[in-house]
Amino acid sequence: MKIISLDQVEKFKVDMAGAEKTWKQIPLSQKDGAPVYSYRVFTVEPGGFTPYHHHPYEHMNYIISGEGALVDKNKKEIAVKQGDFVLVLPDEMHQYKNTSEKEPLVFICGVPKAFE
Amino acid sequence: MKIISLDQVEKFKVDMAGAEKTWKQIPLSQKDGAPVYSYRVFTVEPGGFTPYHHHPYEHMNYIISGEGALVDKNKKEIAVKQGDFVLVLPDEMHQYKNTSEKEPLVFICGVPKAFE
Repeated sequence: MKIISLDQVEKFKVDMAGAEKTWKQIPLSQKDGAPVYSYRVFTVEPGGFTPYHHHPYEHMNYIISGEGALVDKNKKEIAVKQGDFVLVLPDEMHQYKNTSEKEPLVFICGVPKAFE
Repeated sequence: MKIISLDQVEKFKVDMAGAEKTWKQIPLSQKDGAPVYSYRVFTVEPGGFTPYHHHPYEHMNYIISGEGALVDKNKKEIAVKQGDFVLVLPDEMHQYKNTSEKEPLVFICGVPKAFE
């Protein structure tokens, strides 16, 4: 059993092409003995975004706080906000943007453990 | 891609021995094409609790709101609150209780898709 508050989890700047003003935390992963999945948390500052990309595994997201846009495969921007769940399927193009001028966009991003 | 707000997800009373005043939602699962994992959300009303039990798969939890206790294998009660992540390992005894007199305890409970 592991219990950890998000504010106790180390935060890293995302140093990845196409990402701006984005931070990552990894509260639960295979390092903790998780058998199947990992939970990361991304914090996107106002003006920031994650890469517009795809990969062969899914994302299972929950928006903890803030407001943003999810850019889909047609480059359509779909509003997301606190309380939303999102499933991005394997190989689907996607990007998260913060659309607030003041508040960070904070969301859980679950992936199969092999990918984090 | 699926985007759904938690308040749009159907809520079922948990009808399971050992559970009281507990409701379940399933925002993301294999029915949506999730390849690996399912996300459920449990809402435990004041005075309510989930069963004290174990099973051969893990829970990956995030406390969305409220305050509660996680009962461990030694029947020790560990306080949990909004913002906490919890990994309950396969076969570990566990139970969630709401310890607030006023607020619901609401948490994400991820499991491998075969179990939901």
